[in-house]
Amino acid sequence: MNSDIIELAKTLISKPYAEQGQQSRRQREKLLQALLSNRRLPEDGWDNVTIELIMAEFASMDSNNFIGSVGVGEREARIFSELVSKRNFRLGHGIGRSGDIAAVQPKAAGSSLLNKIANIVALSAIKIGIPETKACLVLPTATGMALVLTLLALRQKIYGDGPYGERKYVIWPRMDQKTCLKAIFTAGFEPIVIEPVLVGDELVTDVAAIETRINALGAKLVLCVLSTSSCFAPRAPDLLPQIARVCAKTGVAHIVNNAYGLQSQTICDLIQKASRVGRVDAFIQSTDKNFLVPVGGSIVASFDKEFIEDVSKTYPGRASSSPIIDLFITLVSMGASKYRQLRKEREVLMQYFKNRMSEIAQKYGEKLLETPSNPISLGITLSRFDSESQSCSYIGSMLFQRRCSGVRTVPKSLEKDVCGIKFTGYGSSSSSYPHSYLVCAAAIGITEKDIDVFTERLDKVMKKCSTRKVSNCSESHI
Amino acid sequence: MNSDIIELAKTLISKPYAEQGQQSRRQREKLLQALLSNRRLPEDGWDNVTIELIMAEFASMDSNNFIGSVGVGEREARIFSELVSKRNFRLGHGIGRSGDIAAVQPKAAGSSLLNKIANIVALSAIKIGIPETKACLVLPTATGMALVLTLLALRQKIYGDGPYGERKYVIWPRMDQKTCLKAIFTAGFEPIVIEPVLVGDELVTDVAAIETRINALGAKLVLCVLSTSSCFAPRAPDLLPQIARVCAKTGVAHIVNNAYGLQSQTICDLIQKASRVGRVDAFIQSTDKNFLVPVGGSIVASFDKEFIEDVSKTYPGRASSSPIIDLFITLVSMGASKYRQLRKEREVLMQYFKNRMSEIAQKYGEKLLETPSNPISLGITLSRFDSESQSCSYIGSMLFQRRCSGVRTVPKSLEKDVCGIKFTGYGSSSSSYPHSYLVCAAAIGITEKDIDVFTERLDKVMKKCSTRKVSNCSESHI
Amino acid sequence: MNSDIIELAKTLISKPYAEQGQQSRRQREKLLQALLSNRRLPEDGWDNVTIELIMAEFASMDSNNFIGSVGVGEREARIFSELVSKRNFRLGHGIGRSGDIAAVQPKAAGSSLLNKIANIVALSAIKIGIPETKACLVLPTATGMALVLTLLALRQKIYGDGPYGERKYVIWPRMDQKTCLKAIFTAGFEPIVIEPVLVGDELVTDVAAIETRINALGAKLVLCVLSTSSCFAPRAPDLLPQIARVCAKTGVAHIVNNAYGLQSQTICDLIQKASRVGRVDAFIQSTDKNFLVPVGGSIVASFDKEFIEDVSKTYPGRASSSPIIDLFITLVSMGASKYRQLRKEREVLMQYFKNRMSEIAQKYGEKLLETPSNPISLGITLSRFDSESQSCSYIGSMLFQRRCSGVRTVPKSLEKDVCGIKFTGYGSSSSSYPHSYLVCAAAIGITEKDIDVFTERLDKVMKKCSTRKVSNCSESHI
Amino acid sequence: MNSDIIELAKTLISKPYAEQGQQSRRQREKLLQALLSNRRLPEDGWDNVTIELIMAEFASMDSNNFIGSVGVGEREARIFSELVSKRNFRLGHGIGRSGDIAAVQPKAAGSSLLNKIANIVALSAIKIGIPETKACLVLPTATGMALVLTLLALRQKIYGDGPYGERKYVIWPRMDQKTCLKAIFTAGFEPIVIEPVLVGDELVTDVAAIETRINALGAKLVLCVLSTSSCFAPRAPDLLPQIARVCAKTGVAHIVNNAYGLQSQTICDLIQKASRVGRVDAFIQSTDKNFLVPVGGSIVASFDKEFIEDVSKTYPGRASSSPIIDLFITLVSMGASKYRQLRKEREVLMQYFKNRMSEIAQKYGEKLLETPSNPISLGITLSRFDSESQSCSYIGSMLFQRRCSGVRTVPKSLEKDVCGIKFTGYGSSSSSYPHSYLVCAAAIGITEKDIDVFTERLDKVMKKCSTRKVSNCSESHI
Repeated sequence: MNSDIIELAKTLISKPYAEQGQQSRRQREKLLQALLSNRRLPEDGWDNVTIELIMAEFASMDSNNFIGSVGVGEREARIFSELVSKRNFRLGHGIGRSGDIAAVQPKAAGSSLLNKIANIVALSAIKIGIPETKACLVLPTATGMALVLTLLALRQKIYGDGPYGERKYVIWPRMDQKTCLKAIFTAGFEPIVIEPVLVGDELVTDVAAIETRINALGAKLVLCVLSTSSCFAPRAPDLLPQIARVCAKTGVAHIVNNAYGLQSQTICDLIQKASRVGRVDAFIQSTDKNFLVPVGGSIVASFDKEFIEDVSKTYPGRASSSPIIDLFITLVSMGASKYRQLRKEREVLMQYFKNRMSEIAQKYGEKLLETPSNPISLGITLSRFDSESQSCSYIGSMLFQRRCSGVRTVPKSLEKDVCGIKFTGYGSSSSSYPHSYLVCAAAIGITEKDIDVFTERLDKVMKKCSTRKVSNCSESHI
Repeated sequence: MNSDIIELAKTLISKPYAEQGQQSRRQREKLLQALLSNRRLPEDGWDNVTIELIMAEFASMDSNNFIGSVGVGEREARIFSELVSKRNFRLGHGIGRSGDIAAVQPKAAGSSLLNKIANIVALSAIKIGIPETKACLVLPTATGMALVLTLLALRQKIYGDGPYGERKYVIWPRMDQKTCLKAIFTAGFEPIVIEPVLVGDELVTDVAAIETRINALGAKLVLCVLSTSSCFAPRAPDLLPQIARVCAKTGVAHIVNNAYGLQSQTICDLIQKASRVGRVDAFIQSTDKNFLVPVGGSIVASFDKEFIEDVSKTYPGRASSSPIIDLFITLVSMGASKYRQLRKEREVLMQYFKNRMSEIAQKYGEKLLETPSNPISLGITLSRFDSESQSCSYIGSMLFQRRCSGVRTVPKSLEKDVCGIKFTGYGSSSSSYPHSYLVCAAAIGITEKDIDVFTERLDKVMKKCSTRKVSNCSESHI
Repeated sequence: MNSDIIELAKTLISKPYAEQGQQSRRQREKLLQALLSNRRLPEDGWDNVTIELIMAEFASMDSNNFIGSVGVGEREARIFSELVSKRNFRLGHGIGRSGDIAAVQPKAAGSSLLNKIANIVALSAIKIGIPETKACLVLPTATGMALVLTLLALRQKIYGDGPYGERKYVIWPRMDQKTCLKAIFTAGFEPIVIEPVLVGDELVTDVAAIETRINALGAKLVLCVLSTSSCFAPRAPDLLPQIARVCAKTGVAHIVNNAYGLQSQTICDLIQKASRVGRVDAFIQSTDKNFLVPVGGSIVASFDKEFIEDVSKTYPGRASSSPIIDLFITLVSMGASKYRQLRKEREVLMQYFKNRMSEIAQKYGEKLLETPSNPISLGITLSRFDSESQSCSYIGSMLFQRRCSGVRTVPKSLEKDVCGIKFTGYGSSSSSYPHSYLVCAAAIGITEKDIDVFTERLDKVMKKCSTRKVSNCSESHI
Repeated sequence: MNSDIIELAKTLISKPYAEQGQQSRRQREKLLQALLSNRRLPEDGWDNVTIELIMAEFASMDSNNFIGSVGVGEREARIFSELVSKRNFRLGHGIGRSGDIAAVQPKAAGSSLLNKIANIVALSAIKIGIPETKACLVLPTATGMALVLTLLALRQKIYGDGPYGERKYVIWPRMDQKTCLKAIFTAGFEPIVIEPVLVGDELVTDVAAIETRINALGAKLVLCVLSTSSCFAPRAPDLLPQIARVCAKTGVAHIVNNAYGLQSQTICDLIQKASRVGRVDAFIQSTDKNFLVPVGGSIVASFDKEFIEDVSKTYPGRASSSPIIDLFITLVSMGASKYRQLRKEREVLMQYFKNRMSEIAQKYGEKLLETPSNPISLGITLSRFDSESQSCSYIGSMLFQRRCSGVRTVPKSLEKDVCGIKFTGYGSSSSSYPHSYLVCAAAIGITEKDIDVFTERLDKVMKKCSTRKVSNCSESHI
């Protein structure tokens, strides 16, 4: 509503009301203006009126929506279905240009602006935990695919010590989740698996083995260490500062798989510290695991702005703006204050969850695994199933049937072939973990009620299994 | 996006793109500006980007959406459900004030502006057919309820010949649809039914009887003639100019039930002419029947601005803005040109429909009713059912089961009690119509395909009924 | 998803997942099934997935959405704009039939079912406060219009003591809000205003005067007493049981304007008790003021099922389903437990609000009005403005400019003409209220933060006014 | 609505209406059932009622939406923003599992089913043009990224003649668009550029050079030929059958970049024929360029089912379901018949466009480029700018400012460095194209009006440039 319209409106709804309306409209504009000039996530979340208004503004800036627009190219963002058009807020051009996913798209000023702002608020949100972060790139791909792109970008780098193009190995402290291993293979590298060491109940990075292995392979043939900062207990987050020191010393890059680590300040501190004492080229996280959006996006972040530009130039072609829209809307409607609050609540609930799980464990002769370094995940032993390795998955299955998702049961000594590598003790990230166990997590957004309901259901399942033979406690298995 | 924001955007997406975006944004603002300064329905329809942007602007002007707003009254437009909020475009205050449904609502500048604009575009759309219309009022009530309000407003009028408060009778040329009769009773008046005269196949207003009756009752006791301009064949639209002359002569008001008459220029001309040669106080139409919106709204229009103000002051309390939102969005996305086109297409299809129905009729020994004055509805005889009055409704029922809606079958000489009045030949608007018949309509939005599919299905149904005994052609009856 | 589809799905996503999905789907169906068999508002609110699924089911049952449907009537629920179609959940036929707003619409089984269910959950919600309620009717009109329809329905009644058709007067304990008075006039009756009596700071119904007046006019000429149960302080809710007794004794009907009374158990108890000890024909409330939906709907409720049917037959024509959709969605997503919780929170906050207002009042030499019978609204004196009657509206104006809505300032002895009746002390509901004052309310949905922010802003405004001359404290006045 | 609910509904809205509603509901279920059992794109498009119902069904099958669900994992599809939740139809889990983007996700039966069905309808749509296609994979990535994944999948293949892991070269018939070249580099291969030969005005594949080059490099070191089937004139689609024969002979893979080729039957025939006479491993296309959805998805298709499975296992991690939702909704609402119609209209308009452009060209002393093999794109010479190579971009710039998008102007002999390779005549796909020219396209969805408006604006721009000095015809350049 420009001032000409307001003048006309005054003739219809009287001067003071029109002015009051205009003033309110201006207040909203100031929210966007402040974001753009401070380049910071707003402290207080925006209401949906503001968000919808801004999304409509963005849409009106894209050429496919220009009044009188005519397109004669091969791609004109014509959208057949109104349902599809509406859910995409009338945006059709995606983000990026053929050469660079972060580049401005001439046909789509609105989408481009949205993309820039999404990256600004994402960086701002990351800096809440890791203040020295210099740049980030929101990608409309899974974390694993972002890892692939990061590895591919790394291969094209030329550092002081020469090009990385010929390097073949990725040192990978074992972490039993398929995505990461697959990312290494997809990118065309050979993973070098480093087993952890057992400290108490916890599985900790064998830093010495990493260094030994780099030297044995020849540092000039090693692309990077791909460490993991967020993982299921009993594995601890990797000792990032120590790894970073080894990387700096040997001239090997260091990429951190920080999938859901942003939500924990403990993990953020590890990354921040690692970058101070050694080398961290990039850390990669999922948008959905940290920011409560649907699956589909990831963020590559770095203390080196140039490296982020390299990654952004690695994605060939334009990409979906959907995950970017989701993240933008979520972050601005959350605001920094709510995000901090969610992180704090999570920490408090983590302690609560441990206490509740410890009670259940004791009730059935099991124990809470002592994994003090893992700030998100926790586990209890399932020793009663140690001898019948398969059966412990029944617990998981019974819980899923009781509508508990996300819990995993890991039997002792499972053998499994993943991407052609044979793993023993698969699931535990160690070939010799001494327990069968059940593991779960207190991730961002969890509520006290979630924990109460879950522990109650777990109690019932444990009871059912402990009073009968294992073979009888099974139900149809998913 | 004010210019400060655009300046900031230039630093993110480069100057020319930001400017191109801004220019496009301005073009959209000019659409609204033009509407407000010309007070006319735009010639070309607006796209959804523009409409959504403007709805978001309206929302931002309402006090319940003010940033930092706090409400301590009895009604603060707090909305519990996000689904509800979203479907109402974040508007919550409805329209009007306690005293006047057209008044500006101080808490809701945006909703008030929307309401004013909706009335502007509605008037503009009406003037396409009836150019001398002076004012109109979009009401979030059914046509029948709008009739009630109009009658109640009339009762409160004081004209040269004294107050209307004591007048008790409403002269009503018979039209067999419940709503209208009920409206008269609900408003507290006594209907005086005037039977039509048969001219060819057509039922035509008995103007002489109207005049006679007014004089017999005493004109000072007659509130108005409530005529009907759109109706199902074989009834013709009332002879509005002739009635208007009688009303002018006798000092009786004249309200036209124009339910779906706006879509036909023939009917519009009748109303326009009536106001020139005699008295028309108001004409009332449905929004859904004329403008392709969901059921729920009506428009009271008049050649006298003051009378519309009277009606608007009759509705006590604020009202739902939903039918107003629907009409506003529909009219601006239609634009005057598309509306004219739809009206023209309807006229062409009316002729086509007549031809097709005539063919079917002949095929089964029936005939198209000759009702040249009715520009929207048409009928064919169902003489084969004349003797078994009930059975002809089976045709309708069988058609409904074949997913044909809107068709009516009228048996000869049906007796029915409506609002305490006994009618003979109910459905035909005459106590002595000589045929059973089937009637349908070519209403705005109808397509050639509709007509083809319908006549094909009718053909099958007629065939089925003509080859067997009537009693066998029945199916489960709805 | 019927079982055939699930069988096919098993071939795509494996048996157990398809079955898990089907089971979840069934759980949702059971929610609706339970509502329909218990005819009760669900205890726990439904999630949006369920609601959207059910709305889509309703849509698929309406004839305009039938696959292969063809319409040849005058009203075929063709919807031009996809935006409009979507916001109406693809429903187009509104509710009701020409003769009865509660009747099933043959063309629209889905809309009709929705309407029936909305009335079921509305009744169930009312019974939380007033358990002996027998029937209710959700109307897509303002409360004032619902009053009109109720008065018109009453006029058509024939009771043991004869028809009500000739009764002219409505006894109205004065309550200074335009809507109610206008409703009486619109319906064609003459209001008889009964002044309240002052008890402490509170304005209380003069029951004796009501009885005297009925007798003086002749009970057979009095249609009803139209009492008010929810109102701004210092007026108290009317003494409903006492009025009900007078009505029973004199054979006069009793309609309660319960605009926002459902949210308060105290008021609900008054209505319940009145119906036990005397006569209550109907009580009427707004949907938005009690259930946190946008303005646009009202509910007529009664202890007599038949009277509700009478009212439903008074509305001529079909009506908008929008307010019904809003109410249905809101009530089922709220659930009985959340509704009870909101009511309780309101009560607690009412006390809190009183305390905070009392503090502010004392700080500026004013006092909280002692109005113990009013459970929703509260006021403080503005004695410093007693002598300058106009100026106290500045306070309201300044608060509105500070984004506080809903507060009213009432000067002493304001004279005003409403609907042709001259009132003294307009706004206070009394010709002789001894104070100027400011009044606000703790309505359902209010939060502690609302109260804190409001009292803080009020504090500043009072301060500003008390340190300077009144004439200087004014700002541009809305 | 299961039959229990329908039974209950009968008590509310009468038996026949409830049954009619149920029948309509069942008809909708049959649409999905038919799709699942025939595994074919429906012939007629579905209405939005059906689509919304099915999307709601899918949502209800995902575990994050289970009633009573509790999540204790690291990723629980909690969605913070209702706006985000709604636009994603309440789906949160994305598609795929860590190991395989096509795998069923246990937590998300609904999303998984949607994904399977999207792939079914996509395959069906592709088979309209290329009937022998065996499998396809819809990916939520740009075409370029899909090329990367395909190349990476190829590297992991072991065929009869040994593993492809050591192959380094990709033979690439030059096509001047950045994405493709970047895809080769990102995947870690070395592109071998093959210049086209000039035939008339057209640039045609130099098949002999391809074969010579493969042999020179050593076929065992060549991963594949990456050919292009859709491109801007004057380049012709590659001679796919001939290339396919060379590939088959030399044991080199063959990937076709079919970005927007599906819309043209001529191009589809080329691919189909190539697979019959030689080797085609996969062909890759964009969803937005062929199916009128927003940018963001691509489809890898093949005549070999197994290869598609390999590609689907290459993507590490789950991915966004947004592009899949868009494609599913679009294809089922389009239906096969509308898709065929759009393709036919495009072909007719291509001829029309050529005629109009030829007229314009002649008017200004230029000529339409004779490029009979290119069925989508066409160009006209801009010989007047031959000598001032930069200036011809002004034409493009002026057209963009007149809201014409998609047109490209290519100056003669532009030199450009892309991904470290030096190209002469960049833009024309040839180092020695003899003209400057302007090129545009008749892509699916184009309308006659688009062409008319464009040629009119082009006419004006050409006029402006031809009457003045070139330097004066420039405007601010985007």
